[in-house]
Amino acid sequence: MESIKIAVLGAGTVAGGTFRVLTRNQEEIARRAGRAIEITLVGARDPAKARAVFGPGVAIQSDLFAVVEHPDIEIVLELIGGETLARELVLRAIAAGKHVVTANKALLAHHGNEIFAAAQAKGVMVAFEAAVGGGIPIIKALREGLTANRLSWLAGIINGTSNFVLSAMRSEGKSFAMALAEAKRLGYAEADPSFDIDGIDAAHKLSILAAIAFGIPVQFHACYTEGIGALELRDMQAAEQLGYRIKLLGIARRAERGIELRVHPTLIPSRRLMASVEGVTNAILIQGDAVGATLYCGAGAGAEPTASAVVADLVDVTRLHTADPENRVPHLAFRLDALVSTPILSIDDVETSYYLRLRVLDRPGVLADVTRILADASISIGAFLQHEPEENQDQTDIILLTHRALEWRVRAAIAAIEELDSVLGSAVLIRLEELA
Amino acid sequence: MESIKIAVLGAGTVAGGTFRVLTRNQEEIARRAGRAIEITLVGARDPAKARAVFGPGVAIQSDLFAVVEHPDIEIVLELIGGETLARELVLRAIAAGKHVVTANKALLAHHGNEIFAAAQAKGVMVAFEAAVGGGIPIIKALREGLTANRLSWLAGIINGTSNFVLSAMRSEGKSFAMALAEAKRLGYAEADPSFDIDGIDAAHKLSILAAIAFGIPVQFHACYTEGIGALELRDMQAAEQLGYRIKLLGIARRAERGIELRVHPTLIPSRRLMASVEGVTNAILIQGDAVGATLYCGAGAGAEPTASAVVADLVDVTRLHTADPENRVPHLAFRLDALVSTPILSIDDVETSYYLRLRVLDRPGVLADVTRILADASISIGAFLQHEPEENQDQTDIILLTHRALEWRVRAAIAAIEELDSVLGSAVLIRLEELA
Repeated sequence: MESIKIAVLGAGTVAGGTFRVLTRNQEEIARRAGRAIEITLVGARDPAKARAVFGPGVAIQSDLFAVVEHPDIEIVLELIGGETLARELVLRAIAAGKHVVTANKALLAHHGNEIFAAAQAKGVMVAFEAAVGGGIPIIKALREGLTANRLSWLAGIINGTSNFVLSAMRSEGKSFAMALAEAKRLGYAEADPSFDIDGIDAAHKLSILAAIAFGIPVQFHACYTEGIGALELRDMQAAEQLGYRIKLLGIARRAERGIELRVHPTLIPSRRLMASVEGVTNAILIQGDAVGATLYCGAGAGAEPTASAVVADLVDVTRLHTADPENRVPHLAFRLDALVSTPILSIDDVETSYYLRLRVLDRPGVLADVTRILADASISIGAFLQHEPEENQDQTDIILLTHRALEWRVRAAIAAIEELDSVLGSAVLIRLEELA
Repeated sequence: MESIKIAVLGAGTVAGGTFRVLTRNQEEIARRAGRAIEITLVGARDPAKARAVFGPGVAIQSDLFAVVEHPDIEIVLELIGGETLARELVLRAIAAGKHVVTANKALLAHHGNEIFAAAQAKGVMVAFEAAVGGGIPIIKALREGLTANRLSWLAGIINGTSNFVLSAMRSEGKSFAMALAEAKRLGYAEADPSFDIDGIDAAHKLSILAAIAFGIPVQFHACYTEGIGALELRDMQAAEQLGYRIKLLGIARRAERGIELRVHPTLIPSRRLMASVEGVTNAILIQGDAVGATLYCGAGAGAEPTASAVVADLVDVTRLHTADPENRVPHLAFRLDALVSTPILSIDDVETSYYLRLRVLDRPGVLADVTRILADASISIGAFLQHEPEENQDQTDIILLTHRALEWRVRAAIAAIEELDSVLGSAVLIRLEELA
């Protein structure tokens, strides 16, 4: 059978990795897909760079719009990143009847609904396994593997940079700044790491996962996002003493009055497998009503892990491109006409547990005052830790773990606590999830 | 669109779980699959029992052969278990042009090649996600998610009963017999647990996974199988001291001269995530050349976790049953005409590391004699542990961890070591894998 012809937009790391994997494993991939998959055309603004990446066998064009409409091409692989140009190119490719494979989570977080609707109308596929969790086939697991389940929640370590920084803080006792510097040195963090460290990248990915899990539109704009930049080593150590570890999690949960969609540092029990996921590894835990909890771990980034997901999509599209669109898996797991508009909850209306650290004067009655305020707000306490005051200090830290409570209640109680004369400065508040 | 009509063979636990999940989540499943999936016919030798499981809405027949050929039925779900009758029924269903979904690993381990060939010839699908790893979508991950990769090995905790027993031994210091008794009491082990404990169930599953991973026929008969019945608590404890845990693993590896296919107790480093997979949970670790290592964990058995996988298959088949067979994923990941006959290696030709415990007389020169024999066989030692002899004892245990060596070499060296006057009884030999 004739090979299927791919055009690639971009000549960066993932493009290079994809070309390498397709070339190295071409025989094995053809044995699985039933026909060869061949990159024949590359669109790149820097043709010399593209030539260095793809070698002499491909045609290279700098007019990207001509590439996505080229008549020989059946699948357009979008790897240029960014949102604006990528959106235009992808929509143009769809309009030209091409299937699209993309690794671009920012694109889908911002414009996914528009893109999927256009693809549906045109009867083409947009595949995006590489957009979340690198090489872990998490989109496929969620969209096809767990299709029997009503999913109640998912929680993911979906940003490798942040997880590397937190792992280095915990295991080596480094400060946030030192750990981040190490991540930069090792190439795990960009020169400007804010996208990763502030949780935005994780929020992009989470909004895609939540759409697939719950059959809702992609709603990145509604995702609560808090990064790891304010985390202190002593809170990681106190968490450890209490039997917890701090991870940057993306959490999506079906609650009574809506869907929780939030990215923030989170205490999780140290005994959970997820707590032992270290370094740049990603892990996603999914809770379904039939299957219970399933966990998926692997490399969340890197040229070849991402290429692994890209090529899996290329094989899927190759298999199904001649099939009736009715035979295909819906882009967001649920058919577009079956999406529902369950509201995303404000963070105020999220219910979770909390780690609370207060700097207090070391004198009688402080704890009584604090716990009285919490009790009056119906917030109950699950664990308590107080360190000995350092020598010649009249101050100390008290740490409380609460049971589940609504965030606005906890915020209000903390405001009252911070008003106490014996409480110094601001409270440190970190959410806590048992993940069970 | 009209619903798709399923016939179920069997009325046991998984059949009941599947009916429950399909009923409870019917709306959500239809939103994903595009049409309703309905069990309309049940074949069961005990109609009263089937009625109790499926309620009044289904037709029940005791003639199973009439069920698989019923003209209204599009998919036959085989859940009766066993090999002989199940094989006949499945082949008859295929001959009648029905698609088949099965959870029967013994059936596929013994008759998979025959069944897949028949299905291919007839243009129907045989789906079997539930046969391995319960609700973990591991067949899909391996067959579709990792399709870009040349896979070098996989290692799985794929028998929950054994893992429960080993976990109870390690964490509670129980003997094998006590731990097994507890597993029986909790319903995790059958009255006759030999299928699980002896590694046969794991070997069934491993032979299926290996076929998909490497593009080879299913070769259960060639799988080396060793159970956990001979494991002693003191070896688990010694392993722990050396930084390892003992798990019953199914391992498939592409070696230079063939494929390793083996189930046996295995020391793995305690720091690996897989070492922390406890109780009846299953976990499969897969190494691909592009993606690196990915890990999949979840419930490996139980009515609803298994039903989760069964229903995922029903949805897949529902989507693709009207598609050209060319559009479908090959049963064994690779197209039948692309399977290769790489030989399965004898256990003698497997290369791995070893844990070796010897009971020796506590006198000078013993260690020198032992290590000399190993050195002469070119087997090098990675770690060494000797306990103080118990009081008033002239005997003690010495424990060695070797580097990688061919099994036949190690066996020969051990035979020579057992000949030494200072070595008492037989050596304990447990294989060791770094899983990296």
